[in-house]
Amino acid sequence: VSRLTIVKIGGNIIDDAARLEQFLRGFAAVSGYKILVHGGGKLATRLAEKLDIPQQLVDGRRITDAATLEIVTMVYAGQVNKTIVAKLQSEACNAFGIIGADGDSIRAHRRTGKMDFGFVGDIDSINGDFFRMLLEAGLTPVCAPLTHDGKGQLLNTNADTIAQELASALGAFYEVSLVYSFEKAGVLRDANDEKSVITEINAALFSSLKTEGIVSGGMLPKLQNAFAAIDAGVKEVVIGKAEDLSKLLSGETGTRITHG
Amino acid sequence: VSRLTIVKIGGNIIDDAARLEQFLRGFAAVSGYKILVHGGGKLATRLAEKLDIPQQLVDGRRITDAATLEIVTMVYAGQVNKTIVAKLQSEACNAFGIIGADGDSIRAHRRTGKMDFGFVGDIDSINGDFFRMLLEAGLTPVCAPLTHDGKGQLLNTNADTIAQELASALGAFYEVSLVYSFEKAGVLRDANDEKSVITEINAALFSSLKTEGIVSGGMLPKLQNAFAAIDAGVKEVVIGKAEDLSKLLSGETGTRITHG
Repeated sequence: VSRLTIVKIGGNIIDDAARLEQFLRGFAAVSGYKILVHGGGKLATRLAEKLDIPQQLVDGRRITDAATLEIVTMVYAGQVNKTIVAKLQSEACNAFGIIGADGDSIRAHRRTGKMDFGFVGDIDSINGDFFRMLLEAGLTPVCAPLTHDGKGQLLNTNADTIAQELASALGAFYEVSLVYSFEKAGVLRDANDEKSVITEINAALFSSLKTEGIVSGGMLPKLQNAFAAIDAGVKEVVIGKAEDLSKLLSGETGTRITHG
Repeated sequence: VSRLTIVKIGGNIIDDAARLEQFLRGFAAVSGYKILVHGGGKLATRLAEKLDIPQQLVDGRRITDAATLEIVTMVYAGQVNKTIVAKLQSEACNAFGIIGADGDSIRAHRRTGKMDFGFVGDIDSINGDFFRMLLEAGLTPVCAPLTHDGKGQLLNTNADTIAQELASALGAFYEVSLVYSFEKAGVLRDANDEKSVITEINAALFSSLKTEGIVSGGMLPKLQNAFAAIDAGVKEVVIGKAEDLSKLLSGETGTRITHG
């Protein structure tokens, strides 16, 4: 079974040209099949401000009205995605930018429920054959966090969740390592101490970290995604600093999510 | 030899949601292999206005400074490209949006010369193997008019020229029909009379149309591209109305460019 590394890169890195370049050099150097999933939240917020389009956030999640969908499509699928692809090409990584509509790669439906999040999509299916075709042709998919409903509607979709769903779906064909990389060294016991990285979290520890309030905010859904991937048969999930990618993969740094 | 239809869709259609949908339904219905190339100029100009980024046009060509490159990347590769891809998917056309950086599909160099056009690219090479792989996997590439230089730089590149270069490069593998579709019925003898379509133009007629001033402005480079494609072995080039796509391909309407 071939190895597949799926890396999610977080917003604060994308926002910082020098750190992004350093990360992309590290990503280009990863051997074997690989997929990059990116966000781009801060750049979208900034463009919305410039265009006087008010942004509504509920529990850190963006309400995506029609004007905001246009903004995230421009920023995520245009500016961020193509800048990353061009940089990876210059690092001899044959990158290839996509969203869920491209090749019908990721289908979703508009989120339902009491709260109306607007054009936000929850994933229905990953087109595994499509990703395998690209990977086996030597291409590296770079996924922007947008999906479609098959009826012509684009949908804003959480990048952490896309990375998890990709890992879970492709775990049937590859030995998948899923990396959530961002600006911090891993899951921290003390948010202000980069040296307080928890090196390993299993389900029991996750439960007590939640009770103690050590894991909260944006880390909570990230860890839920990590456990969903592990449960779906993904070989390993690591959380840590974007610039440390090779060390995260070799097990030297970061937080590992494990069974039992 | 399989048939390949390459369609360039012009800016005024993209700007009009109802006409764009009608065109896309027609495009989805074209049988055989196909590629769509689009522009998006007016939407980019509008976004630049909203963001107070002055646009400089010289002979109808956009000077692409860094801020303008960001805008065209957002509009062409993001908003326009992904909107088209999602609509085509809803019409059972397995579309796939790309720019030249994706899969290293189109390489270019920054234009040199007396006039500095900024980040504008002149095409060096088309990755024919890449397009063939996509087509033969049942995918329909949708190309936004951006290329890259292989060193990490995105470049703004004329969509008419991309369509011509694709047709010329892929003419070695397919029987290529190249269609330049826009808001007019074809090349007109009288710009104000939609019924004055010139049904056929060969090199001699083109020469006299230029001398008479009947062909001028944006039509001039379009026809130069058309003849370059014919000279490179493309089977046919047709110019005409976007909503008449099937009639353009069957020879009922539009202007045909021919040898001799």
